Amino acid sequence: MAVGNWGRWGDDDERGALNLLTPDVVSAAAASVRTGKVYSLGIPIQASGVPLLDYRGKPMRLTLQDATDDGAYKDFGCHEGTGAHEDVMVFASHTTSHMDALIHVYGDYKHYNGVPYTEMRALSGAARLGIEKVEGFAARAVLLDLPPYFGGSDDWVELGRTITADDLQGCAARQGVEIRAGDVVLIRTGYLQWFWANPGEQGFAQAGIGFDAARWLASKDVVAVGCDNAAVEVIPFDEGDFLGVHKVLLVQHGIYMLEFLNLVAPARDQAYEGLITVAPLKVTGATGSPINPIFVA
Amino acid sequence: MAVGNWGRWGDDDERGALNLLTPDVVSAAAASVRTGKVYSLGIPIQASGVPLLDYRGKPMRLTLQDATDDGAYKDFGCHEGTGAHEDVMVFASHTTSHMDALIHVYGDYKHYNGVPYTEMRALSGAARLGIEKVEGFAARAVLLDLPPYFGGSDDWVELGRTITADDLQGCAARQGVEIRAGDVVLIRTGYLQWFWANPGEQGFAQAGIGFDAARWLASKDVVAVGCDNAAVEVIPFDEGDFLGVHKVLLVQHGIYMLEFLNLVAPARDQAYEGLITVAPLKVTGATGSPINPIFVA
Amino acid sequence: MAVGNWGRWGDDDERGALNLLTPDVVSAAAASVRTGKVYSLGIPIQASGVPLLDYRGKPMRLTLQDATDDGAYKDFGCHEGTGAHEDVMVFASHTTSHMDALIHVYGDYKHYNGVPYTEMRALSGAARLGIEKVEGFAARAVLLDLPPYFGGSDDWVELGRTITADDLQGCAARQGVEIRAGDVVLIRTGYLQWFWANPGEQGFAQAGIGFDAARWLASKDVVAVGCDNAAVEVIPFDEGDFLGVHKVLLVQHGIYMLEFLNLVAPARDQAYEGLITVAPLKVTGATGSPINPIFVA
Amino acid sequence: MAVGNWGRWGDDDERGALNLLTPDVVSAAAASVRTGKVYSLGIPIQASGVPLLDYRGKPMRLTLQDATDDGAYKDFGCHEGTGAHEDVMVFASHTTSHMDALIHVYGDYKHYNGVPYTEMRALSGAARLGIEKVEGFAARAVLLDLPPYFGGSDDWVELGRTITADDLQGCAARQGVEIRAGDVVLIRTGYLQWFWANPGEQGFAQAGIGFDAARWLASKDVVAVGCDNAAVEVIPFDEGDFLGVHKVLLVQHGIYMLEFLNLVAPARDQAYEGLITVAPLKVTGATGSPINPIFVA
Repeated sequence: MAVGNWGRWGDDDERGALNLLTPDVVSAAAASVRTGKVYSLGIPIQASGVPLLDYRGKPMRLTLQDATDDGAYKDFGCHEGTGAHEDVMVFASHTTSHMDALIHVYGDYKHYNGVPYTEMRALSGAARLGIEKVEGFAARAVLLDLPPYFGGSDDWVELGRTITADDLQGCAARQGVEIRAGDVVLIRTGYLQWFWANPGEQGFAQAGIGFDAARWLASKDVVAVGCDNAAVEVIPFDEGDFLGVHKVLLVQHGIYMLEFLNLVAPARDQAYEGLITVAPLKVTGATGSPINPIFVA
Repeated sequence: MAVGNWGRWGDDDERGALNLLTPDVVSAAAASVRTGKVYSLGIPIQASGVPLLDYRGKPMRLTLQDATDDGAYKDFGCHEGTGAHEDVMVFASHTTSHMDALIHVYGDYKHYNGVPYTEMRALSGAARLGIEKVEGFAARAVLLDLPPYFGGSDDWVELGRTITADDLQGCAARQGVEIRAGDVVLIRTGYLQWFWANPGEQGFAQAGIGFDAARWLASKDVVAVGCDNAAVEVIPFDEGDFLGVHKVLLVQHGIYMLEFLNLVAPARDQAYEGLITVAPLKVTGATGSPINPIFVA
Repeated sequence: MAVGNWGRWGDDDERGALNLLTPDVVSAAAASVRTGKVYSLGIPIQASGVPLLDYRGKPMRLTLQDATDDGAYKDFGCHEGTGAHEDVMVFASHTTSHMDALIHVYGDYKHYNGVPYTEMRALSGAARLGIEKVEGFAARAVLLDLPPYFGGSDDWVELGRTITADDLQGCAARQGVEIRAGDVVLIRTGYLQWFWANPGEQGFAQAGIGFDAARWLASKDVVAVGCDNAAVEVIPFDEGDFLGVHKVLLVQHGIYMLEFLNLVAPARDQAYEGLITVAPLKVTGATGSPINPIFVA
Repeated sequence: MAVGNWGRWGDDDERGALNLLTPDVVSAAAASVRTGKVYSLGIPIQASGVPLLDYRGKPMRLTLQDATDDGAYKDFGCHEGTGAHEDVMVFASHTTSHMDALIHVYGDYKHYNGVPYTEMRALSGAARLGIEKVEGFAARAVLLDLPPYFGGSDDWVELGRTITADDLQGCAARQGVEIRAGDVVLIRTGYLQWFWANPGEQGFAQAGIGFDAARWLASKDVVAVGCDNAAVEVIPFDEGDFLGVHKVLLVQHGIYMLEFLNLVAPARDQAYEGLITVAPLKVTGATGSPINPIFVA
């Protein structure tokens, strides 16, 4: 049985929809830059004030070297008053703003392209489909700003609302933008605005896309879908199917998912189109990486 | 006494040379894209096979969730055979390919813009000039490929050789590229090629720029200098002054330093000019971050 | 000016009151064993259900190797079905049940024996007075069970109550035990019972000893004071002096402090006297260590 | 088929041979103390100068709070010059001196008492047989010092030599000590002395016990076997069976294994008998713990 994009770029392919990003597509993406205004879409990595899931632990920044080490290098030609500060970081690969590798989610015990879920090992990590296979990419990005599309007085879509393919098309039409093959589609639900307006109330419910929106995006050959919520997809899950949209996008189609992106600044500027670069850390064998995408409108 | 760029963008400025990146400069950078070919400049983050400094420890990727957790979510509508893999990462902020925050190095007990070295605290991190102030940026990049400029049979510049302002200008002229205000200058010394050709021999000596090259780059108003070695600057240090070039670029001029970038792929393509995006993780209060710059030629 | 025990065991001494533990004292301690019943005084190290201070982060146990690595060693004579599970741990040195090293607290910028507070460095840790100097010890322990002494219906001493020297002596007299030189004094305030009876209410207030109890314990030449609360001392601090009791015991007298010990089991058994062993992890240069003291009554 | 001690202490037992440690046995162990001299058997936890296995990473001690935070608590009644130093630790549960939990090794896909190897999960750890079930214990210890027994000029047993039941009995007879039910048997092979005499030469070969010694120890109903090498058992493995001795002791008999203990100090003193306490950190769900056993001779 044919599954989504499995086999489309070869049976050994580990990059999925990134194969759509030919130099021509990237050149066109660069040409879509209008204002030159730059938006950094990552939210801070810190232990409080940002949405965190308990089981992932709290990010830690620990000091490796500071002023108490002053003088340690004087035998190496270090002048008095010269020194360096450094840190060590501890955090989940899926902490705050992050990107899922194709090894992240499996359905029917299989990942994208039929890779069995046993290709992930505790000690050595992902033998295939790890985040290092992404390398990093540049593409055209289209931002869909849902709260004003749905209207109402809140700056967010009601928690738990399923965003449909019609919603995405309607919003794009209202904004006058078109979704093309090779695009990164950025969907603002306002989740982060809700979170910051309601300190201490983080639950699981969130607005997000459902199955038909996921299938429509896959049919448009997008490369990645970014969102300002925890999972891109609606929670409670569409049809009650845990990680169902992940299975459509990531598993069946090799389309990447970018979560907890802060999209409010370009949305306020009505900067709906531009070049995006996404640069996961190349941690060998990892299942994802924190990211800080750069959007140039 | 006036020091470099101190005060140039206000006494409270914490972003240094990034102030040069106006929308016009960024638009011009985007317009410099020719081929649309994308290069990811980060090297892998892993415990062996990459240059590491002992005192920073070895990067760790640890599994947070894997197939042994299969079935844990079945009460939440999780179908049999569906699951997710995740990890936790532990590494130094200055591990493998990384970017120095302006809080990284101090001279005469002061950082850029006169910020005292006591603004870095063990527990809370950088009160000012932390890596989160960078946010992320896009700029024009120029790549200078030194090994072919110097000639000889090796694919690297002799370890310990000081690269001068004349060398940089000569190399740029040979390549037919011009360095402009707002640029990121990428300098390939071939250090990584030497490292991979000589497994197990990592020492401290490296080719890199000296004082006059650093001052010349500062005079050109570059935004950042990237290199394929550990410190951008030559080691043994120019004039025996420990971190001397860091003090010129980072401390006096607020010019960022990007280290251990893999520049060999664009160099082989003679891709000397293009758009670069640099997206540090926004770890609040950190002194630097691993990066994976995206260079679109 | 003479300060407590400074100089008593030599100007270079780094072990403080542990010097009181001569072989004769230890033999007598072993001879105090009556029933042979063993109590493990450490509370669990885990991310919830135990008292934690935010700034120390949450303890993490991460899997290093599990069933997903099954088969990895088959080329080394590993039979099918044979394997090993391992983990990595991340936690603060002062997490849950722990012991303070003499480098932990300073007053007037000095630690025990006049060691300046600059002997602790971020990168290399404690040059003197680190936890590794403790090595581990065995001593006689006396348990003072305060809640029944104070009476009332609660199984804990009122949060914030200052325990005095008279209280300690009265409680010892009521229990029929004597405090001797070289003893470890274990003080049960019932804090952990209060914590487990009031989930989610952890604050800073706790019953604990004040200045005169600390000075009286020092006058008795005890080796260490253990308690079931966060700091041994009362909070709000006696006389409003932050860490004041730490300065009397740890700094002035080189008397060790053991915190968050679970003393309820021996208290229930009225096991007020016995042998205790305390075995910090010998992490070179650390300021303390989690511990799990063994009390043999 | 009856397997070793499976079922002996009930089908739900998770403590194995620790069940042998009745109060009477412990009282007798305390009564075996002669000199009152205390030995701490743990080796340091640090990144160099101690035997480490690559896949476990290097232990890290990171500073959490130091002099750069001086003044942070002045609003809480903290006097000038008062402060605290703290750290965070990162290390493998089986780093340097450590104890294996019964969940550590499996054979025929089963742990002690028939617990299936799937009881260890990446996210939540050991559902059964985790290190927290040990709690901590006190027992009689007997030290067998093999290098002088075998004779020769080295202070260590030849790397790779299999230590037999006859060797253990001969050594005990020569030393005039007897092994009893409930004992911890400490076997010095001199591995650590070899390691420290040969810096940089750590390999896998080590002297250790083979199958018949393991079975003989099990027949004596010992509680634990401690050794100064990496695995208690000989490497290359007896009969080429990877972790074969672990399967006899840990899996079939629920007898604990203590590794990388420093036994040279009591050996030099001919302190062959005494009380030992072993106090793993109670990390919920962990497969082992660093330890620092206290031996009172």
